[in-house]
Amino acid sequence: MKSNLKHQSNDPNCKGVEILSIGTELLLGNIVNTNAQWISEELSTLGLNHFRQSTIGDNSERISKLIKEISSRSNLLITTGGLGPTPDDLTTEAIAKSFNATLSERGYLWDQIKKKLSISGSNFDRSSLKKQCFFPKDAQIINNPRGTAPGMIWKPIEGFTILTFPGVPSEMKEMWKETAVNYIKSNFSDGYIFFSNTLKFSGIGESTISEKINNLLKLKNPTVAPYANLGEVKLRLTARAKNELEARKIINPVKEKLKKEFSKFIFGEDDDNLSSVLIKELLKRKESLVFAESCTGGLLSSSITSIPGSSQVFKGSIISYSNNLKQSLLSVPENLIKKFGAVSEEVAETMAINAKEKLNSDWSIAISGIAGPSGGNKEKPVGLVYISIAGPNGHLTNIKKIFSSTRNRIEIQRLSVNVCLNSFRLILLSSSK
Amino acid sequence: MKSNLKHQSNDPNCKGVEILSIGTELLLGNIVNTNAQWISEELSTLGLNHFRQSTIGDNSERISKLIKEISSRSNLLITTGGLGPTPDDLTTEAIAKSFNATLSERGYLWDQIKKKLSISGSNFDRSSLKKQCFFPKDAQIINNPRGTAPGMIWKPIEGFTILTFPGVPSEMKEMWKETAVNYIKSNFSDGYIFFSNTLKFSGIGESTISEKINNLLKLKNPTVAPYANLGEVKLRLTARAKNELEARKIINPVKEKLKKEFSKFIFGEDDDNLSSVLIKELLKRKESLVFAESCTGGLLSSSITSIPGSSQVFKGSIISYSNNLKQSLLSVPENLIKKFGAVSEEVAETMAINAKEKLNSDWSIAISGIAGPSGGNKEKPVGLVYISIAGPNGHLTNIKKIFSSTRNRIEIQRLSVNVCLNSFRLILLSSSK
Repeated sequence: MKSNLKHQSNDPNCKGVEILSIGTELLLGNIVNTNAQWISEELSTLGLNHFRQSTIGDNSERISKLIKEISSRSNLLITTGGLGPTPDDLTTEAIAKSFNATLSERGYLWDQIKKKLSISGSNFDRSSLKKQCFFPKDAQIINNPRGTAPGMIWKPIEGFTILTFPGVPSEMKEMWKETAVNYIKSNFSDGYIFFSNTLKFSGIGESTISEKINNLLKLKNPTVAPYANLGEVKLRLTARAKNELEARKIINPVKEKLKKEFSKFIFGEDDDNLSSVLIKELLKRKESLVFAESCTGGLLSSSITSIPGSSQVFKGSIISYSNNLKQSLLSVPENLIKKFGAVSEEVAETMAINAKEKLNSDWSIAISGIAGPSGGNKEKPVGLVYISIAGPNGHLTNIKKIFSSTRNRIEIQRLSVNVCLNSFRLILLSSSK
Repeated sequence: MKSNLKHQSNDPNCKGVEILSIGTELLLGNIVNTNAQWISEELSTLGLNHFRQSTIGDNSERISKLIKEISSRSNLLITTGGLGPTPDDLTTEAIAKSFNATLSERGYLWDQIKKKLSISGSNFDRSSLKKQCFFPKDAQIINNPRGTAPGMIWKPIEGFTILTFPGVPSEMKEMWKETAVNYIKSNFSDGYIFFSNTLKFSGIGESTISEKINNLLKLKNPTVAPYANLGEVKLRLTARAKNELEARKIINPVKEKLKKEFSKFIFGEDDDNLSSVLIKELLKRKESLVFAESCTGGLLSSSITSIPGSSQVFKGSIISYSNNLKQSLLSVPENLIKKFGAVSEEVAETMAINAKEKLNSDWSIAISGIAGPSGGNKEKPVGLVYISIAGPNGHLTNIKKIFSSTRNRIEIQRLSVNVCLNSFRLILLSSSK
């Protein structure tokens, strides 16, 4: 699904911003260029006219030629990569060459680099790092709080500015936020920003959502764009406006319409995920949670404990992967397993009830299933999962789910975790305190 | 660290292959361009000289201009995106315009598309799909077995060929394998392939490895390129040869040298990971494994159970996130927690010994630490982790680790899991049966 955002870049004569990713490893396909995507998103948010991206290898002559080419058609160039200490790191040098400029050393940068290295205790041969202190005379330095390679802001000719960043994503992002955003805002923004607000859905598919909101998908401001991940759908509402407040005013009526239409299918916004939403809700209710996991093997617990503050509501889990441990740790009767099998509603239910009691919790979720690739049969195929949720006042919900046979082991585990969390969310919603 | 692969593309006058990714959603940063990475890797394998990639939006004039530009410097262009039925899908039309060619309908394609739609039972308005049947007269069609939009192989001028693919990765990949690979092999390949074999390291940093093999990093065939992820380093050995067998012969002497130099730091090759290697080893030894997790909250268990067949050696875990559960489920004495704190060598050791016994396993790994962002203090900072490994014949190993304060919660959890798995691997190595 394409965005309808009518980007100024659709005027082919309009100058704008370009991204240049530098590194032979990109051309060899060794790594995915996530930097270009991240910067693109940032540029969108800043309302900048971004119409072209290029990727090139570690070849000084090619880099120089391409930068010269870009300077003839764009106002602002963002480069990533090639700022490191190795002989393959040629970006600054090649940029200077494009404009017949020379590089000179900034002594204070060398002191900073030595200091950074002594802190991290690296034994790396430091002399090779010295090239990271050389920049064109009139370039402004972009400090690198997470690494040794600084970037630069340089305006080699009238109407053309280059910002350079290392290829390491964490360094690039930190430098972007700390230095580049403000520089770009005050020098390049036309006063309009793109602001996005994302609604997150669970328990409903992208195609069902898209069909129901066909008219909204055609809007121009805000635009509404659907994205789908494994078990999660997002609708991204993007407005072009003078500021965030105005953008929110443009977005809100559409958002309210969506909230009305999809109510309980929407579990959160922006950075929310099912785990963070559940933890917030349990905190509010002052209730605790434990798990008894079999086929998900720790992934359910892990998805909760990845969230800061989870220890306030999550007490722990029993991962009873073997049948023996289902018996010894969760007191699932041997008979029950023999009669119904470990993957059965009966066993999942017993796991949930006993985990709740043994781990002394308000809520417990148990799951038993066949994640594959082996272990399935005609009656109980790979992808079959039983979930049981036990709660206060004898609450008990049992869920049976069969995931498609095209799913692999990890997908079945992830989708199972998703169903556990979303089912629990819906139970909490319907029994709101 | 960059690859030294002396790619023919390092000759700036050499013509070659380019990739052009078409789609405004890429410029807006809505999606990551995984297609370019995938095709790059394929081109490497085919031994093709690939020196530049571009990304452009859904703007016919810009696309035409860029394609004209590329035709002046390259022999082969691979495009992705813009073949669909919407008004934003402009690729074929724009390419034709670059060379003043017209498009004409292929009747049989329309029949195929209608057939595909009747099978999938889609309600989509079909008339818009008709544009997918229009191609330049002398273009060869690339059949799309997974979707409705075919691609084309077209040679608009002498010395320049274009291959077009849809942007949907699964369709593009299938079409590539079914049609493009053979076409490229017989028309563009010089008979050589690039073949890679990757060695995987744990417990040693990228810079330490690079320093020790400085001479190997300069090799031309095979090339040796280091890559680092969180807690894992890889060395990728790539050979240019007539076929895989010959490539392996070129790679093997270097590989043997590396294996000798780094012996126990190398845990596997290619698709191996620490978990899969451990499971294989435990299977061989017929020994079982359980965990007692606190700060990793299920991630350690999950990393093992993500591997098919893990149930043959992994019995289960106790995730004792709260101190109460450390006492009730793992019989850690309240006194011990009071005296030393839950994050202490004493508590981790007790967790390991008791988990091994209670869960009736040959081996157990326990971990207790502070993943943050809160919960740390001067004496016990965020990033402090105690690991204890208990095994047969009273084996006991205790490990204390302090991860850098710049690490976030998820990084600390992942690095902790890594240390657990790698420490256990080394113990198994030194006590090999």
